[in-house]
Amino acid sequence: MIKVSIAGGTGYTAGELLRILLNHPGVTIESVISSSSAGVPVSSIHRDLFGETDITFSGKVGQPDLIFLCLGHGLSRTFLAENNIPATCKVIDLGNDFRNDPKFGGREFIFGLCELNREQIRRANSIANPGCFATSIMLGLLPLAASNALTDEIHVHAITGSTGAGKKPVDTTHFSYRDNNISVYKPFTHQHLSEIERTLKVVGNGEVPPIQWVPMRGDFTRGIFASIYTRWNGQMSETETISYFKEYYNDSPFVFVSDEPISLKEVVNTNKCLLHIGFHNGYIHITSIIDNLLKGASGQAVQSMNLMFGLDETTGLKLKGSAF
Amino acid sequence: MIKVSIAGGTGYTAGELLRILLNHPGVTIESVISSSSAGVPVSSIHRDLFGETDITFSGKVGQPDLIFLCLGHGLSRTFLAENNIPATCKVIDLGNDFRNDPKFGGREFIFGLCELNREQIRRANSIANPGCFATSIMLGLLPLAASNALTDEIHVHAITGSTGAGKKPVDTTHFSYRDNNISVYKPFTHQHLSEIERTLKVVGNGEVPPIQWVPMRGDFTRGIFASIYTRWNGQMSETETISYFKEYYNDSPFVFVSDEPISLKEVVNTNKCLLHIGFHNGYIHITSIIDNLLKGASGQAVQSMNLMFGLDETTGLKLKGSAF
Amino acid sequence: MIKVSIAGGTGYTAGELLRILLNHPGVTIESVISSSSAGVPVSSIHRDLFGETDITFSGKVGQPDLIFLCLGHGLSRTFLAENNIPATCKVIDLGNDFRNDPKFGGREFIFGLCELNREQIRRANSIANPGCFATSIMLGLLPLAASNALTDEIHVHAITGSTGAGKKPVDTTHFSYRDNNISVYKPFTHQHLSEIERTLKVVGNGEVPPIQWVPMRGDFTRGIFASIYTRWNGQMSETETISYFKEYYNDSPFVFVSDEPISLKEVVNTNKCLLHIGFHNGYIHITSIIDNLLKGASGQAVQSMNLMFGLDETTGLKLKGSAF
Amino acid sequence: MIKVSIAGGTGYTAGELLRILLNHPGVTIESVISSSSAGVPVSSIHRDLFGETDITFSGKVGQPDLIFLCLGHGLSRTFLAENNIPATCKVIDLGNDFRNDPKFGGREFIFGLCELNREQIRRANSIANPGCFATSIMLGLLPLAASNALTDEIHVHAITGSTGAGKKPVDTTHFSYRDNNISVYKPFTHQHLSEIERTLKVVGNGEVPPIQWVPMRGDFTRGIFASIYTRWNGQMSETETISYFKEYYNDSPFVFVSDEPISLKEVVNTNKCLLHIGFHNGYIHITSIIDNLLKGASGQAVQSMNLMFGLDETTGLKLKGSAF
Repeated sequence: MIKVSIAGGTGYTAGELLRILLNHPGVTIESVISSSSAGVPVSSIHRDLFGETDITFSGKVGQPDLIFLCLGHGLSRTFLAENNIPATCKVIDLGNDFRNDPKFGGREFIFGLCELNREQIRRANSIANPGCFATSIMLGLLPLAASNALTDEIHVHAITGSTGAGKKPVDTTHFSYRDNNISVYKPFTHQHLSEIERTLKVVGNGEVPPIQWVPMRGDFTRGIFASIYTRWNGQMSETETISYFKEYYNDSPFVFVSDEPISLKEVVNTNKCLLHIGFHNGYIHITSIIDNLLKGASGQAVQSMNLMFGLDETTGLKLKGSAF
Repeated sequence: MIKVSIAGGTGYTAGELLRILLNHPGVTIESVISSSSAGVPVSSIHRDLFGETDITFSGKVGQPDLIFLCLGHGLSRTFLAENNIPATCKVIDLGNDFRNDPKFGGREFIFGLCELNREQIRRANSIANPGCFATSIMLGLLPLAASNALTDEIHVHAITGSTGAGKKPVDTTHFSYRDNNISVYKPFTHQHLSEIERTLKVVGNGEVPPIQWVPMRGDFTRGIFASIYTRWNGQMSETETISYFKEYYNDSPFVFVSDEPISLKEVVNTNKCLLHIGFHNGYIHITSIIDNLLKGASGQAVQSMNLMFGLDETTGLKLKGSAF
Repeated sequence: MIKVSIAGGTGYTAGELLRILLNHPGVTIESVISSSSAGVPVSSIHRDLFGETDITFSGKVGQPDLIFLCLGHGLSRTFLAENNIPATCKVIDLGNDFRNDPKFGGREFIFGLCELNREQIRRANSIANPGCFATSIMLGLLPLAASNALTDEIHVHAITGSTGAGKKPVDTTHFSYRDNNISVYKPFTHQHLSEIERTLKVVGNGEVPPIQWVPMRGDFTRGIFASIYTRWNGQMSETETISYFKEYYNDSPFVFVSDEPISLKEVVNTNKCLLHIGFHNGYIHITSIIDNLLKGASGQAVQSMNLMFGLDETTGLKLKGSAF
Repeated sequence: MIKVSIAGGTGYTAGELLRILLNHPGVTIESVISSSSAGVPVSSIHRDLFGETDITFSGKVGQPDLIFLCLGHGLSRTFLAENNIPATCKVIDLGNDFRNDPKFGGREFIFGLCELNREQIRRANSIANPGCFATSIMLGLLPLAASNALTDEIHVHAITGSTGAGKKPVDTTHFSYRDNNISVYKPFTHQHLSEIERTLKVVGNGEVPPIQWVPMRGDFTRGIFASIYTRWNGQMSETETISYFKEYYNDSPFVFVSDEPISLKEVVNTNKCLLHIGFHNGYIHITSIIDNLLKGASGQAVQSMNLMFGLDETTGLKLKGSAF
């Protein structure tokens, strides 16, 4: 059994990790760390876990085989520095500290996009888990990058659920504001752009055309819907292109290319990514959907953990979708 | 023209007052008071008013004919004491300071339920505007009280939208929590019980049986849906009872008795109250719906203002419902 | 492995059964029956199953060990009569055909409320799965019935999600109508009353006081929130009563009594029922929450299946909640 | 008083017209036509109008000064042909029959985009009311077209509420499907493209670059949020461009350019269009929001009516926003 600790245990991604790991056949939970809530049952914060576990938050790390860092962005470095995590303890960071700056304290963080870096992840002892938006967009673009078909600007609108904004209540997550509302934020400048560009640069011929991306806030709780298009160079036919996508993800148990148009709830509460591909006006149009807390965060982190510990990639991740 | 000031200008009920008053033909806005936002355009806080007004928040009251108090509960007394509001300035308090304790600083606050106290309100210079839950429940019960038909316990479940919880983001108004969720709060103990009981005591024979009331939080923004039942004493027939309700509200331009079952959105963004009456198992069952920010707060306050200044009760309150 | 068939394969409860059974370690799916969709992939109807299964709908039953009937109310009798299901094939009916009228074609249908009839279900070959509303209300009342504490009228408001209304689009499930809306339907007359009364009659001293129940339509997709109160006879103290509830469900792996107030999403996408108990004004107030498609339908059906085939009651039902 | 008839009286846009016109000081309603519902109160279909009007649906047109056609797309021609509407009766068609094909039966339909065709509309006797999506996108692009700044491809994602899909319940407006869901439809091929292109062709130098547009279905009831960008040719500075937009709409009482980012609910239940402009990566990015049933349909139609009958453009259209 893998002994696992979770730092930043009261946040959304920690809660989601617990929801997965409590049913994971290969894991025991060593500690769920929260200095502010030490001693309190985790189910008093993650209320849906009532009846599932009697674990209490802990002030100490313990001696885990693996620690998940679910801290605010920028706090992972501090945590590792202050807690003397031994080199033998594997680390998966769900924040953005190491995605673009992977070396720290003798560790080298592998970018945890399993569909791209599966073999490196198997051998890794430190993982920088990709961002949620980045995951949905990269999985839509990887086959194009790999086939050198990214030759012109990429246009993206991607809309996220409210859980992407974290647990602290703020004006833009107030129900009275958010319900039945839509807005744009950080247009053309979202911080996930850098990890997308950095990732695409090591695929295919390494060309990364400019990405014009408008992120949006949606009035739903879970999920990311990304609509992506770029000029289609036509080197492969439409049929060949779709086949190439399917083949590219053939060994990836969570990514599927749908011949039918897709809607967000087809992946909610699963670790899946669904893609749909269309061709219009000389463009290839890709829609890509994930659950931001699962394939976009905690699910993907467990997927990496499975690879790092030699388990089947899907262990504990065959989740019943909520569908509605 | 009535010169109006609004204290506590940044909150939800103040914003809703502005939405009404900017289109009211008999009102000019003297000041929208906010010490924290003085000098800032009101449309920078109440964003939907962009294009409607260039008014800025003011630190001073000015010399209004009427001041609406949209302060947190308990702050109206302090405001009146500190701001030397002259006796010639009428006051409508949207908080709960004077509903059950109506005398203060030489003023006597009339309970602003127009359907009950219309004549007193016409002559009043100070109004305690009823609470939102209380309004929906009282309008459902008044005809029964008036006909001495409240002879047994009253059972109420009433569910409110998120705007009832105010503007400050908290855990229970976080979209990630509230969306698609339902919960109970303050069961059997909600603070509006006292103004309901106090009101019913002066109607009919003054008997007020116990009220068993479970308030609920709904996953919608506007509105209150109250489901009320009590033993039906059968002194009038079913048809007579319904006729009595209709007659009781005959002169009330915002209360209607529907022969068809009702759903909440039939009143959203209006100042109306709709009632529907059924008879089952020896009980009379009344459903009552209002928009909590309008008939439950700012709309009702303007209705009182109209009466106090000799205007038609509906002036400025013929609002287009949102329906969807 | 249990060979399972599902009749009425295109509806909501059939889809939910598939979501569970595809991950169930003791089940193989023999057939998903739909005469109208025979030959079509089930994932073309239950879109979230894309990537999970390649099964197609079948026009034939096959030779299952167990058949789940997910047909419209009233159609289960017809199905059994027309399809010559052998007596050796177990049947779980998710409709209401056999809940109050349990004998048919040589079969005797046991009421599938596992928390009450666990031992009978283990030995049963035919199950009438309880209704969703009925489940939430009965689980809230069973300990009171068992301790002879149901001595006065029972008052219930229970609010259901839209999936309870089934798959066919109608006016009251139109998004433009339902979103941010609340309504009452079938007040005091809902058809689940009879199975609740019939069930409570065989518990404790068999007294069943009148149940006054107002069902409501909520603007969420999954879940039932039931708020129940009745006069508290005080034979046990508050503490003893709560302890009794906990003890009563001690062997029931899906029912939990929370000391904290509960909100609906704590059980969504799980097979759990959470209860919370309060005491006010001489009443005991019980809130009870379930996911209507799981503990209220397909999850409860699988729970019965597990018992009927000697599996652990929770097999395949340790589901990750959606929480948000 | 203008005598008005409404054909297709049971649909969403007819209901919204009634909500506006019942409070319009210059209008009397001659007839609300519905062959299927003749004799029935309009408030039995448009339930929120209960208490507002006693009008019943009529089978006959009567002798209106103006008739609004709220029929399914394609049915306006049939209606006009079959009902012998005299040439002296003005017509406003809310369908798409005459937007691109403006001559019929001796009438010439003017495209009812008041911000562009104000003077023509004043003199018109027949109006083709613009489509909802088209309105939001055109209002975002008109100033660029007028200043010859549309020199490169235009990229649009625009997301609509469920009322855009009409009243008939279908799979994609089922609450269980639509709630918390997002999807794309008719990508790059939406039928409103032609009226947008046709309109832009008569503005400025008449150049219309290709428009790449992905329409989306949102999980809200009212509103359209359009996010539009195109290469910015930089002939004017950023400040000059924003000033030009403001100046362009200076005489348009419903279009406003916000210096702050906008969110959809700032216009819901109003006839306003809000625009916000940003500059990034050599692109000009315009967000444009309207209420699809008001500025995108019935409100815009009344705006045209006001102009046609010499009234102030805003008469009856100063609506209280719902804000939440």
